Amino acid sequence: MSLGPGFPDYIIPRARAALDEAQVVVGYRTYIDLLKPLLTRQEVVVSGMKAEVQRCQLAVERARSGQRVALVSSGDAGIYGMAGLVLEICGAQGIEAAPPEAPGPVDFHLEMIPGVPALAAGAALLGAPLMHDFASISLSDLLTPWEIIQKRLEAAAQGDFVIVLYNPKSQKRDWQLSAVRDLLLGFKDPDTPVGIVTRAMRPGQEVVLTTLNEILQHPVDMQTVIIVGNSQTYTYGPYMITPRGYLAKYRVAAEDF
Amino acid sequence: MSLGPGFPDYIIPRARAALDEAQVVVGYRTYIDLLKPLLTRQEVVVSGMKAEVQRCQLAVERARSGQRVALVSSGDAGIYGMAGLVLEICGAQGIEAAPPEAPGPVDFHLEMIPGVPALAAGAALLGAPLMHDFASISLSDLLTPWEIIQKRLEAAAQGDFVIVLYNPKSQKRDWQLSAVRDLLLGFKDPDTPVGIVTRAMRPGQEVVLTTLNEILQHPVDMQTVIIVGNSQTYTYGPYMITPRGYLAKYRVAAEDF
Repeated sequence: MSLGPGFPDYIIPRARAALDEAQVVVGYRTYIDLLKPLLTRQEVVVSGMKAEVQRCQLAVERARSGQRVALVSSGDAGIYGMAGLVLEICGAQGIEAAPPEAPGPVDFHLEMIPGVPALAAGAALLGAPLMHDFASISLSDLLTPWEIIQKRLEAAAQGDFVIVLYNPKSQKRDWQLSAVRDLLLGFKDPDTPVGIVTRAMRPGQEVVLTTLNEILQHPVDMQTVIIVGNSQTYTYGPYMITPRGYLAKYRVAAEDF
Repeated sequence: MSLGPGFPDYIIPRARAALDEAQVVVGYRTYIDLLKPLLTRQEVVVSGMKAEVQRCQLAVERARSGQRVALVSSGDAGIYGMAGLVLEICGAQGIEAAPPEAPGPVDFHLEMIPGVPALAAGAALLGAPLMHDFASISLSDLLTPWEIIQKRLEAAAQGDFVIVLYNPKSQKRDWQLSAVRDLLLGFKDPDTPVGIVTRAMRPGQEVVLTTLNEILQHPVDMQTVIIVGNSQTYTYGPYMITPRGYLAKYRVAAEDF
């Protein structure tokens, strides 16, 4: 289930109810700590970063044993979150899961509860940068070869997509964003608006409006989402705006109003 | 502000509070009707489809006059929603808006409240199709020339992105999805998994798991989101899964566990 960006104000009632009903809550330490006020009764299993596989395996085992388990992910569990790994584990081990309303016997019932993804939270703080077609790309080459990431960046630039960058930097990865800047400058104007949002709607939130050219001058980390505009994106006051075309159409049809 | 896919279970507390605090609620008739139980006290201004510009203009005017206005969008207001148009209108008319916490005088304060986008709601019902890089493309050529849409589809296919299709069909537009199928079959296996979700988490919800080859055999409309897998996407039972690579890594490092 998904926590959204900054809980509890951004967690949907369906997710809150699932937390309340859970016998066991499983999650990454940082998020479990932030959730503490809501976890008064449930067994809590915390784990560190990079323990994703053990965390999901444990959640699957507990669910198979008949317990009500809430496996938490920040943002949306289905976007670079825990949802896929749970299903990959089931598939690899021949475990049958099914949605709550599915008929017939299964090993356990599984509800994927969506949330506000980091890209939507970041976009809201920047104005409206995602109003037109966009591509989301993670810069983590821990699980994906850099050549694939590079190929996707090129394709996204060629398609003039707004580009959302997840995981721009970690403690061990520090060169990727510079490589992205060089690559994108081959396709895009150096003055293309770029928004950088870190810890959206959480303590320590930072929002920066800058340009592709200056993208390296601002601190980023694993809790940062970067949004690079398309060829039409502009700024107005504190806002980053990707137009969808309404106003051009509106002007043409002004006599109708 | 954003309503998420199926309100009220999927509307975040921050959005619910904004509705409660509003003096005026402005929105598209279909969504306002669904929200009725929450709108006991506020003035309500409804408008039909294709009246987006008037709706946003009215919301901006009411806000400038000092009223607390909630302009509602289903899903996430920042993804093909109303957020951008509000800012485009402000920009075109020299109206100064700023976030609630901004210092100094402005014409009105504006909070963008994010929500669960249709792509995240649809993905949750399908399993975990968006676990790796994806591109979101609207097939509506009302505001975007078809050549641009086509170029983006080609780029997304070349980059092996998971592809999310918004607005696959309307009453007046019926040929686009067939053109998309032909185009994507030039790049992708005909058996590529495709998920089709209509009215996610709302009355009349439909979830279909099919293939690129068979994509035209199922009803779609303006409330449908279609997710086309990448080259790694597979199905397992009722689920569509795009792997992120954890399990391959896990097998290599199995002795560490």
